[in-house]
Amino acid sequence: MKHCSQCGAVVSLKVPVDDNRERHVCDACDIIHYQNPKIVAGCIPVWEDKVLLCKRAIEPRHGFWTLPAGYMEMGETTAEAALRETLEEANARVELQGLYALMNLPHVNQVYMMFRSKLLDLKFSPGAESLEVQLFREDEIPWDELAFTTIRHTLRYYFEDQQRDSYQLRIGDIVKEGDGYGFVSSPPTTG
Amino acid sequence: MKHCSQCGAVVSLKVPVDDNRERHVCDACDIIHYQNPKIVAGCIPVWEDKVLLCKRAIEPRHGFWTLPAGYMEMGETTAEAALRETLEEANARVELQGLYALMNLPHVNQVYMMFRSKLLDLKFSPGAESLEVQLFREDEIPWDELAFTTIRHTLRYYFEDQQRDSYQLRIGDIVKEGDGYGFVSSPPTTG
Repeated sequence: MKHCSQCGAVVSLKVPVDDNRERHVCDACDIIHYQNPKIVAGCIPVWEDKVLLCKRAIEPRHGFWTLPAGYMEMGETTAEAALRETLEEANARVELQGLYALMNLPHVNQVYMMFRSKLLDLKFSPGAESLEVQLFREDEIPWDELAFTTIRHTLRYYFEDQQRDSYQLRIGDIVKEGDGYGFVSSPPTTG
Repeated sequence: MKHCSQCGAVVSLKVPVDDNRERHVCDACDIIHYQNPKIVAGCIPVWEDKVLLCKRAIEPRHGFWTLPAGYMEMGETTAEAALRETLEEANARVELQGLYALMNLPHVNQVYMMFRSKLLDLKFSPGAESLEVQLFREDEIPWDELAFTTIRHTLRYYFEDQQRDSYQLRIGDIVKEGDGYGFVSSPPTTG
């Protein structure tokens, strides 16, 4: 951010009065421009023992597989965002079955929220941001060609829970681990 | 938003190519400025059968009572944001006990995430954004002087669960109901 979105003047990084961190503050009109993390909402679309994945037609991670998900928009609920992304990226209609994964990604200022869902029919097809969409059984998942750490952990947990037919909300953080990223689970939310 | 935060030129509302909703797009450099909902993270700080509330020293809802909560910052996890807000607004140190409420507020583009927590000591005091901080038993809660619908529902559920000593994550949406707002619960996240 270089300019004030209200008046167009130049902004400077400074700590406003009564604040404790640097913000972009307008040199002319003094407006403080806050920046905050974004929510990425999406679905695990399930048909029998298979999960629907999308091959990304856009960067980052062009050509890698992902679950349908994307930035939550103004005026939406997280569930509405998940349904919309699933329709946009996979032309797939699903029924939501509850929040399944909530993952913090502080290094990229995102919070992922993935919902379990049932595909309502098999009339899916690639949306504008997908090259292919395809159903995968656990043993068919392209584990080495998944786009994001969040997707790998979400799928790993999902298939674990599918084995015992009992699904548990997974909450935690994606953290740096050696050359890559791992998942650190948070305390359970019930009890 | 009137000006481009990258080049300072005027922005126009239009639907970009391959998009399906209006965005602020720069007339000069064509950058698209996305806007997205924000996360409000906070705590239910508990001591024995009492909950710590803060009387707001700022607008909106100056003089009304709330749980310590505020906008999640860049580089944070939701849990870190909840701990920071509790320290900033109530000078209170807590141990988190898991996410307790996740509420969508599409009419104000927010998602609330409230954590159960145990106060580590009684050395709390009003932060810069609070007039008073005080512990309340259920029968002492100033129900008619609570700042927000989210807080009312979070506290109502919390005391219900406290009665039976079994806590359940509450997920749902704050929706318009007559003159005010109500809470519509989402399907359970487990099972």
